[in-house]
Amino acid sequence: MGSLKIGVCGLGTVGSGVVNIFNAHHGLIQQRCDADLQLVHIGARRDNPNCDTSSYRVSRDVFDVVRDPDVDVVVELMGGTTVARDLVTQAIEAGKHVVTANKALIAEYGNELVALAERAQVALRFEAAVAGGIPIIKVLRESLAANVVSGVAGIINGTGNFILTEMANAGRSFDDVLAEAQALGYAEADPTFDIDGTDAAHKLVILASLAFGIPLDADAAVTEGIDKVTPEDLEFANELGFCVKHLGIARRNGNAIDLRVHPTLIPAHRQIARVDGVLNAVMVEADAVGEIVLTGPGAGSLPTASSVCGDLTDLGRVLTHSKVDPTPTLGVPCDQLKRLPLVPRDAVKGVWYLRMVVEDRPGVMAEITGVLSERGISIESLIQRPPAAGSSHVTVVILTDAVVCGQLDSAIIDMESLPALMGSVVRLRVESFKEA
Amino acid sequence: MGSLKIGVCGLGTVGSGVVNIFNAHHGLIQQRCDADLQLVHIGARRDNPNCDTSSYRVSRDVFDVVRDPDVDVVVELMGGTTVARDLVTQAIEAGKHVVTANKALIAEYGNELVALAERAQVALRFEAAVAGGIPIIKVLRESLAANVVSGVAGIINGTGNFILTEMANAGRSFDDVLAEAQALGYAEADPTFDIDGTDAAHKLVILASLAFGIPLDADAAVTEGIDKVTPEDLEFANELGFCVKHLGIARRNGNAIDLRVHPTLIPAHRQIARVDGVLNAVMVEADAVGEIVLTGPGAGSLPTASSVCGDLTDLGRVLTHSKVDPTPTLGVPCDQLKRLPLVPRDAVKGVWYLRMVVEDRPGVMAEITGVLSERGISIESLIQRPPAAGSSHVTVVILTDAVVCGQLDSAIIDMESLPALMGSVVRLRVESFKEA
Repeated sequence: MGSLKIGVCGLGTVGSGVVNIFNAHHGLIQQRCDADLQLVHIGARRDNPNCDTSSYRVSRDVFDVVRDPDVDVVVELMGGTTVARDLVTQAIEAGKHVVTANKALIAEYGNELVALAERAQVALRFEAAVAGGIPIIKVLRESLAANVVSGVAGIINGTGNFILTEMANAGRSFDDVLAEAQALGYAEADPTFDIDGTDAAHKLVILASLAFGIPLDADAAVTEGIDKVTPEDLEFANELGFCVKHLGIARRNGNAIDLRVHPTLIPAHRQIARVDGVLNAVMVEADAVGEIVLTGPGAGSLPTASSVCGDLTDLGRVLTHSKVDPTPTLGVPCDQLKRLPLVPRDAVKGVWYLRMVVEDRPGVMAEITGVLSERGISIESLIQRPPAAGSSHVTVVILTDAVVCGQLDSAIIDMESLPALMGSVVRLRVESFKEA
Repeated sequence: MGSLKIGVCGLGTVGSGVVNIFNAHHGLIQQRCDADLQLVHIGARRDNPNCDTSSYRVSRDVFDVVRDPDVDVVVELMGGTTVARDLVTQAIEAGKHVVTANKALIAEYGNELVALAERAQVALRFEAAVAGGIPIIKVLRESLAANVVSGVAGIINGTGNFILTEMANAGRSFDDVLAEAQALGYAEADPTFDIDGTDAAHKLVILASLAFGIPLDADAAVTEGIDKVTPEDLEFANELGFCVKHLGIARRNGNAIDLRVHPTLIPAHRQIARVDGVLNAVMVEADAVGEIVLTGPGAGSLPTASSVCGDLTDLGRVLTHSKVDPTPTLGVPCDQLKRLPLVPRDAVKGVWYLRMVVEDRPGVMAEITGVLSERGISIESLIQRPPAAGSSHVTVVILTDAVVCGQLDSAIIDMESLPALMGSVVRLRVESFKEA
């Protein structure tokens, strides 16, 4: 039985989960990979009361783990992109395999790290970086290897989905639910990346790289946050037969790639519309398999650690039989990744939800619909609410037909210049997906 | 670049799908496994107009493929368990790797075939044998390797689910929908195994072996078919807030394993209750990951072929770097599988749906509920429909609290001996699952 020795760097939520799994299931792990997979060294600035590290060597300097000649695999679970980048780089240069859960690191520095790992002939794995416990990386990279993927869409930020779900189900405000998410430990003290879509965009570019064989590009996705969604929009969406989800969408569009993260109206009967709370879901459309959907916990200590340990048991099986990991990190060797043009934001064609407040007087509706009609935009549905008692304004909601984004931009500028329109037009994208 | 040569035996629905994928994506497949994966030989009694085999050697005797010294991997896609068993046995004995989509073969002869393959140090893979295009085998065997699985439940027979969905949505009868399923090509000319649960039971024992590390046992599951479900039951289920699905359930129960295939009432809000038509879904409950659900096409030419080709690309990557496949076919080497006792049918505790027709006169309800109460069975819900005009009988539906099956059997014997009860009591199991 071959052996593989593991060092874990970082003892936060995920790191403690990995230690807890090794404490509980060391025998099972050995049996399942028919290899002596041992956790030998933990690097962490401080202890974590949620796990017992007494069986392992513990260092306060995470770089001690990288320098430990006993360690074959360095597991980076610190987060961030500065120290983590140095650590992973040094580990690879020292000839050690690397497993990480760090989506920002992979999205931002993945190209250089993967190239480095391939040159050094060491494995670099990151199942836990996307969608927590859902094994979407392995499914895309291995199970669907004989498919041409046409699209991937997913709810890939649990915090954001928790907030939208609570707002929709309880009619609560964004700020109110965000405060609860922070109290519950779902959201970081600084939840900016969850709210503004950066976290989802990082995960999306990783999925897109695997799905389409393109290099990683952290800034490739058109990104909109969930902070502009109001309880009122969720109500109107519901009335129109939709749920609002914060989706990451990666789609082939001819020879270009359309990458977007934004709040999205989805028909309420679609499976992904019913994925609530901190659950994640990833839908893959591919030419042979058709559509498959994976749902599961998108975060949390043990679910994310389950994915880290899935990578480790893979390496345990493979590296005790073969000197190198035969599975390319990004599905194909990195010199075979091919950059494809991105669909510019303005050129994306889609259906839109528009909400606006207008004066309640004859002729206003004709002015608004006239602007749309001049720009060649058809109206699919329209809701006008009666004015509140004593108010001289009404809310109008419009669902457009498919329209190119740049065209809609112009129409909205025109609408906002109408004297009858109060404030600005709220706009959200609508995705129906094709029927499975 | 290493090379691996493939021979396909059987050119039906799945075989033609595999040929079509190789025809369309040969370059992609080579790139994704960084190996020269070539389809070289097809064995089939006759041509299939749905695929072009002109680039390959074609033999009318499938055993020619096994005898072909060029072939490294034999792909068995003939179905059945007689010729297929001989073919796979001979392939393994000739030192060839095997990929199959044949659930009956694996469920019935898997133990001997896996042992044979391990002795011969060849790979034996069967992703396509369970749930068509859904990569549940790989997820259980590899991604969740560090988890103790507590349960697997799934809709794993697309034909049965199509029939139940059509019956529920259109109020049609079983026979009527079955005839349509046959006309559409979903159901075999002899649909017995789809209807009586044998097909789902085969798949379930494969999942259970991987999930719990137990040997395959084709007859282990308590199996009930869908033919006893009536449109009336679907209506009552709906009224009670449930959908009826034909589920395979494999669950740890202390140190024993509970294996069942039967029509099941599931709360309508559960994700798996909304998986309709020929879709399959598999839900896994495990200690680290929690619950994950995979949904996708459970059958069909290209989806099933996608899974076959997933196995082939795995082998392409691995076997060009290592002499042996390091991944044990059943998750652990077969001498480490451990037989566990089965929970006897009578001892399974569960909630039941009961439907009966009784005389419409005072005191009848007291007699029925009295029988249940004497047997210590509580009633969770009860529906009594008013009698049809001119009828002296009413239909009563009861949802019990959790009760041991043997206890319910006795109560039903008592009820059926009541003079007021007409005919027999219809009974269906109810599963709520724990909330995710």
